[in-house]
Amino acid sequence: MHARGKVYVEGSRPDVRVPFAEVGLTGDLPPVRLYDTSGPGSDPEVGLPPLRGPWIAERGDVAPVRGPGTPLAGMDGRRPTQLAYARAGVVTPEMEFVAIRENVDPELVRSEIAAGRAVLPLNVNHPECEPAIIGKAFLVKVNANIGTSAVSSSVAEEVEKLTWATRWGADTVMDLSTGKRIHETREAIVRNSPVPIGTVPIYQALEKVGGDPVKLSWDVFRETVIEQAEQGVDYMTVHAGVLLPYVPLAVNRVTGIVSRGGSIMAAWCLAHHEENFLYTYFEELCTLLAKYDVTFSLGDGLRPGSIADANDEAQFAELRTLGELTKVAWEHDVQVMIEGPGHVPMHKIKENVDLQQEWCHEAPFYTLGPLTTDIAPAYDHITSAIGAAMIGMFGTAMLCYVTPKEHLGLPDRDDVKAGVIAYKIAAHAADLAKGHPGAQAWDDALSKARFEFRWEDQFNLSLDPETARSYHDATLPAEPAKTAHFCSMCGPKFCSMKITQELKEYAARGMKDKSDEFISGGSRVYLPLA
Amino acid sequence: MHARGKVYVEGSRPDVRVPFAEVGLTGDLPPVRLYDTSGPGSDPEVGLPPLRGPWIAERGDVAPVRGPGTPLAGMDGRRPTQLAYARAGVVTPEMEFVAIRENVDPELVRSEIAAGRAVLPLNVNHPECEPAIIGKAFLVKVNANIGTSAVSSSVAEEVEKLTWATRWGADTVMDLSTGKRIHETREAIVRNSPVPIGTVPIYQALEKVGGDPVKLSWDVFRETVIEQAEQGVDYMTVHAGVLLPYVPLAVNRVTGIVSRGGSIMAAWCLAHHEENFLYTYFEELCTLLAKYDVTFSLGDGLRPGSIADANDEAQFAELRTLGELTKVAWEHDVQVMIEGPGHVPMHKIKENVDLQQEWCHEAPFYTLGPLTTDIAPAYDHITSAIGAAMIGMFGTAMLCYVTPKEHLGLPDRDDVKAGVIAYKIAAHAADLAKGHPGAQAWDDALSKARFEFRWEDQFNLSLDPETARSYHDATLPAEPAKTAHFCSMCGPKFCSMKITQELKEYAARGMKDKSDEFISGGSRVYLPLA
Repeated sequence: MHARGKVYVEGSRPDVRVPFAEVGLTGDLPPVRLYDTSGPGSDPEVGLPPLRGPWIAERGDVAPVRGPGTPLAGMDGRRPTQLAYARAGVVTPEMEFVAIRENVDPELVRSEIAAGRAVLPLNVNHPECEPAIIGKAFLVKVNANIGTSAVSSSVAEEVEKLTWATRWGADTVMDLSTGKRIHETREAIVRNSPVPIGTVPIYQALEKVGGDPVKLSWDVFRETVIEQAEQGVDYMTVHAGVLLPYVPLAVNRVTGIVSRGGSIMAAWCLAHHEENFLYTYFEELCTLLAKYDVTFSLGDGLRPGSIADANDEAQFAELRTLGELTKVAWEHDVQVMIEGPGHVPMHKIKENVDLQQEWCHEAPFYTLGPLTTDIAPAYDHITSAIGAAMIGMFGTAMLCYVTPKEHLGLPDRDDVKAGVIAYKIAAHAADLAKGHPGAQAWDDALSKARFEFRWEDQFNLSLDPETARSYHDATLPAEPAKTAHFCSMCGPKFCSMKITQELKEYAARGMKDKSDEFISGGSRVYLPLA
Repeated sequence: MHARGKVYVEGSRPDVRVPFAEVGLTGDLPPVRLYDTSGPGSDPEVGLPPLRGPWIAERGDVAPVRGPGTPLAGMDGRRPTQLAYARAGVVTPEMEFVAIRENVDPELVRSEIAAGRAVLPLNVNHPECEPAIIGKAFLVKVNANIGTSAVSSSVAEEVEKLTWATRWGADTVMDLSTGKRIHETREAIVRNSPVPIGTVPIYQALEKVGGDPVKLSWDVFRETVIEQAEQGVDYMTVHAGVLLPYVPLAVNRVTGIVSRGGSIMAAWCLAHHEENFLYTYFEELCTLLAKYDVTFSLGDGLRPGSIADANDEAQFAELRTLGELTKVAWEHDVQVMIEGPGHVPMHKIKENVDLQQEWCHEAPFYTLGPLTTDIAPAYDHITSAIGAAMIGMFGTAMLCYVTPKEHLGLPDRDDVKAGVIAYKIAAHAADLAKGHPGAQAWDDALSKARFEFRWEDQFNLSLDPETARSYHDATLPAEPAKTAHFCSMCGPKFCSMKITQELKEYAARGMKDKSDEFISGGSRVYLPLA
């Protein structure tokens, strides 16, 4: 078998079945197993099977909110969160699942969650989700944003983008839909998603008040959060750190407030001259999220939108507040991650992570890029993959992708793929730099295939086998070239890899003493292949 | 004027005319000037005008080698190199040219060249070249590789790739042609190149001996270097550090020797069981290069070709030797840069630069990428842009691009553009991180245009205006959208940038005390635009 297949590794119970992509290699070489986010495949009309159904039910801490068949929520006095279980010393099936997935000890998973250093965003109403852990001790994760907008796109298109994004390796997906049909779009996405789904509830709340931020209120927001939590959203961005006194800090920036949620809350604060209601009602919000095990993604409403605004007082003031809120959420057994920038030049990236880790008590960091320069619209998947790789190396747990359309338009299918792949590269480069156990095995397998001219293995092991194969075929299309011991760069005569292979054979025969024999034997090291 | 044009800034004499791209902005805003590598434009049949002709002639240190109309070389006892002049305290017109180009003091240019920390690769037989300086005190430069191969491509195609590469910002171009018509291809490239041209003479030497490395000799190599120097090649890669005792260090690597030149010399050393003739004849080679002011690019024949092989003893042994050779070259007034890897995980990049700077006495570092992971063939412009940006930040002076076809095939026109743009991003991100004076002005101009919804300015200021414009138009094609105060991401209602702009107006009216007035005045901060 030379192509990719899917295999499942069973855990301590038969319903803990963890998927891996398996790449078969040529000859007698053992297959290579890779982390796999593509899910079991779904019929969009039916949705995915409820993998976690039994695990959620058997804990006996949730019940339908309005009778049989309605969404689940924690029973009175119960907090059905993975954080609560981790703190109680329980390794849930979800934790065992990710331990197998990451090839680590389940106790590491439990203890990192218990300490708040990792999150397992898994709403009790999203049983279709294959658990994925987000924390600096684990593989760096990638999020892909999708969603309808007021300007364009349909529900079916968004579900297709979801499937497409997870096919290429997105670990979570955020549904950022605005405009009409927000509820319907989200329902279709959650039911078909094998990965955790995130949202920004303030977008829908704003729709509910006719698009006027001043009319927003805690009540409208609360109702929106319940609606989304009942649908199964796994994590929610909440801009509770955009405080009234911080807003003036952003006014003299080059690009002011670029977060949509941040600007909405800033407008509300100023219009009412009152403190952000997400901050004043934060404890009540924690109580709510705890009932569904929705994870907080504390939004960075004042993130920098340009190189000029990076690491400024506006951003850092908000970050300190997010640290305070993290502790409040933890008191309620609610999981927390912290969102980060944005646009940051390379020399300021480490400071960002270090301060976030210090001020937010090591809660996982989840950053948008950052873009390392502003000069390349249409290539911001690249400007930001540079920053993403670095911020991942310094300890960021999840990277929110940026597509080539950033700042210019809505990502289509090709943009989603380009964004996910650029970010899988950044995440894996960070895993290597962090010395994540096993990360380099993938690189080594591919490089060995390259060195041994196993072209099909090289293609199949690559992040995007189809494109790699098509690029090879563009220059050397003939089928025999797939097994040729050279490539189109050097051609058959000067191939450096071929020469080194022959050096190896030479060395095996005793390199230092045998040069005479070598030459009299035909100097095979350099001979053209014919 | 809203488009890009070209302007020239005159120096202390009328024939020092330094080109800049000038981006006109809307309204009364002053235009923005950008570094420009595209040259004056040439008719391939005629070649470019000999900008440097008078400067070379008036120094009176070169003469035609075989009578009038033949190539120039240093007269007996003269070393017509920029290094010799810099050491003698002379600011040449070439140095003044780059000082204007980089917006720095000419004395900085002279002193950096004199100290060996920067090079100005300018063969006396390449008068068409617009000088560009390579050194850590200056803007990070980008090299693009082109060239015919045994497998495909024509001379005309390569000249077109040259023009295309410099149009997108390549600062130097290497002609890596193999196969037939090497001389003819190079002649066409040099005559049409406004940027320094580099080569790897061993490739042509190998052609001359029928492709058999064992038949290579100092004589064949010497003759090839003279041929290329007379044509006007500005810098040459020489793998003089691949010493016989180092070869065994590479044998147990995952990917052995991946440098073509490195493997050719390793094969020669082993077959003859003699020391590398490029090393043994190095002083004579220095004498030769000094006559034409050809700059050494000391090749890293043992660079790592995979993550597994990064920063190993084979690479570092060679690097130490390159440091010794640097001093020898400097004794002959020959300029030197040092080539570097390759494939290096992020956490090992800084060590690479630090050791190169220490062992090679701060001679400019010139690296290929490095790729930060091996898993993404077809996307190695991205895997390597990450490493390139970082290694640039740490002090590398020039970045050799990698195209999406790396490891798979020969780059076509689209690949050349993709590679150059990815590397311009990396180089500029490094300039920002190094705090290069003036680098951030470009980002600020673009971000201000973005914030103020000056769409045309944003496009024209971007690295690739056409693509940025087409991405915008894909979602909002109507011409009025170009002046709209919103974009397709948020739509007209929730635009965060628009809200912040209104916050600014609000702040100007006294933010803290005026919220009542603000609300009674219609709460303009949040109103939809329509």
